[in-house]
Amino acid sequence: MSSGQSPTTVEIIAVPGIPEITDGVDLAWVIHDALTAAGLALRSGDIVVVASKVVSKAAGLRRHVPRDVAIAAETVRVVAERAAGDRITRVVQSAAGPVMAAAGVDESNIGADGGVLVLPRDPDAAAAALLTSLRRVSAVDGPLGVIITDTAGRPWRAGVVDFALGSAGVQVLDDHRQGVDADGRPLSVTVIAVADEIAAAADLVKGKAAARPVALVRGLPWARGGVGPRDAADAAGLVRTGPTDWFRTGPVEAIRAALGVPPGSPQSTDIGIPSVTAEPVAPRVERVRRLALHGAPADVTGTAHEAGLTLRASTAYSLGVGVTRAEIAAAAERLTARVEHTGDLSADLSFSEIHDGR
Amino acid sequence: MSSGQSPTTVEIIAVPGIPEITDGVDLAWVIHDALTAAGLALRSGDIVVVASKVVSKAAGLRRHVPRDVAIAAETVRVVAERAAGDRITRVVQSAAGPVMAAAGVDESNIGADGGVLVLPRDPDAAAAALLTSLRRVSAVDGPLGVIITDTAGRPWRAGVVDFALGSAGVQVLDDHRQGVDADGRPLSVTVIAVADEIAAAADLVKGKAAARPVALVRGLPWARGGVGPRDAADAAGLVRTGPTDWFRTGPVEAIRAALGVPPGSPQSTDIGIPSVTAEPVAPRVERVRRLALHGAPADVTGTAHEAGLTLRASTAYSLGVGVTRAEIAAAAERLTARVEHTGDLSADLSFSEIHDGR
Repeated sequence: MSSGQSPTTVEIIAVPGIPEITDGVDLAWVIHDALTAAGLALRSGDIVVVASKVVSKAAGLRRHVPRDVAIAAETVRVVAERAAGDRITRVVQSAAGPVMAAAGVDESNIGADGGVLVLPRDPDAAAAALLTSLRRVSAVDGPLGVIITDTAGRPWRAGVVDFALGSAGVQVLDDHRQGVDADGRPLSVTVIAVADEIAAAADLVKGKAAARPVALVRGLPWARGGVGPRDAADAAGLVRTGPTDWFRTGPVEAIRAALGVPPGSPQSTDIGIPSVTAEPVAPRVERVRRLALHGAPADVTGTAHEAGLTLRASTAYSLGVGVTRAEIAAAAERLTARVEHTGDLSADLSFSEIHDGR
Repeated sequence: MSSGQSPTTVEIIAVPGIPEITDGVDLAWVIHDALTAAGLALRSGDIVVVASKVVSKAAGLRRHVPRDVAIAAETVRVVAERAAGDRITRVVQSAAGPVMAAAGVDESNIGADGGVLVLPRDPDAAAAALLTSLRRVSAVDGPLGVIITDTAGRPWRAGVVDFALGSAGVQVLDDHRQGVDADGRPLSVTVIAVADEIAAAADLVKGKAAARPVALVRGLPWARGGVGPRDAADAAGLVRTGPTDWFRTGPVEAIRAALGVPPGSPQSTDIGIPSVTAEPVAPRVERVRRLALHGAPADVTGTAHEAGLTLRASTAYSLGVGVTRAEIAAAAERLTARVEHTGDLSADLSFSEIHDGR
């Protein structure tokens, strides 16, 4: 070897022979037995990565209610919403913690019992419980970690990846902020979401449809000595909401909320939610009309026609409010309005598409 | 083994002995030599994962201009912006393709030559060129892949992860949409961003500060037969912008843009950009005032005082416009306005914090 540095190898191993998991199964024994049968008995430093689906199954987190009812129950706050046929797809802050589509409610691969699966409300506690059991059945004394994964889409990227929903015994963030780079410059903002990278790596062998819900990650230094106190090293520490979240809602939702119609509200549904697919101008202008009039003075009236909107009011002040609301509502539909004053108490708005770069 | 299914193992190997890369270096030979010296000669099915930093260094993508000038040159469109002291941090759609902070301009670990590094404008072409060279120097005939990675933060998640900036010879998306789950139900929306998961996995061994910019991923089925025609399997296919992007801008930026002040514009800087850290009410109300008056009729005037704003106009219509713009501008500052009409041509607005869930 020409270098003094040894190659560092990490193994990501799909655990074979995990049977269908049913309510009340002891997941730690199932995983232990499968690992042992495959000659993969747990050892110090290992990280066991488990799909949330089997954790939810084993914990009996099955709901025999319509999917939409389950999603509503698991939703803390709506981030974005789009109409897809007669369904509404919502990206939400889930009761489990992360922001994700459909609050993590799962209706695929749920097994013969039917219904839908929901996520553990405290995924880190679920990971800690599994780690404690795995430690007991495997008799491993040193560092050992558990990561519970789920799958989510991401802004600005196609496709889905797995991320760390819950974790125990794993250092979830690798903080280089105190360090320097190889040239001696301070590394100012590099905090690596190690647990998310492990979850993504494990998904490479787990496979969505292949009924291989558990992976063993061997060779990483991120497993720790024990479950320890709950702290920022939990996967909950990977969820960014509140003031440091620059993407609290989608842009469409932000404009509608500023006009008094937050995503997920009954008013939002009443006004109509933009479609996931391209729409002609007419239904978009109709939503502009409804959004402009919602919360405007009661004397403002609006008539939509073709790609235009006529607004009338009984006072000039009200007309100013209505026209301004319509101009801003148009932006939520990626339209821009040209305003023509047809009298002190009436105005015509015509709309065209916004094209502002890629 | 109790199961008929063999364990599937993927190895993620940090390639040791990669020297400092300088302009004009033949990266394929460097990687080939390091792999060979480490007893890791490339074989069919391997995927070589390379940090964009060394690709940019080898290609001479170094700019001896101030960082902000480089970022502006590499920016296609601004998605979100926040003031951080006297600097402005921007998440942008980069010339390289992806949406990321600072357009991927890199000023850490850049080597002794100084300046800043920019990303290849066509990362897939850079990956294809490296793959072609690696194939030639290694004489591997079968499937072989190259992924060029970069690092980015993500909405709703703490920390950064590596993602696939460019790729060649790798199937970047694993499309299960035509498949069924283990229970026979159609898998409707599961398209896995495999290349991003590989990039994340490789980062587990590469390390940000450890001068190990190359990893070998061995055992995955995603390497393909050759470079082939440029197609949706390129990493460019992982970039989601345009109509399917629900997060085209941040919510603050959406509201400001709807009021005529898009992010990244000189007007946005003039009006003032919200801080990354918590701010008292007064500077936020002052931005509300500026934003409300920007593009309002010229006869609207505003005076900010404490947590309030007095608006005056010479016509009732203009006052309606001004008041409505101020109410909506307040939402961009996470404030809500209460309006008191003090006369036909004047109104007082008082502001309070918006608290709408976590």
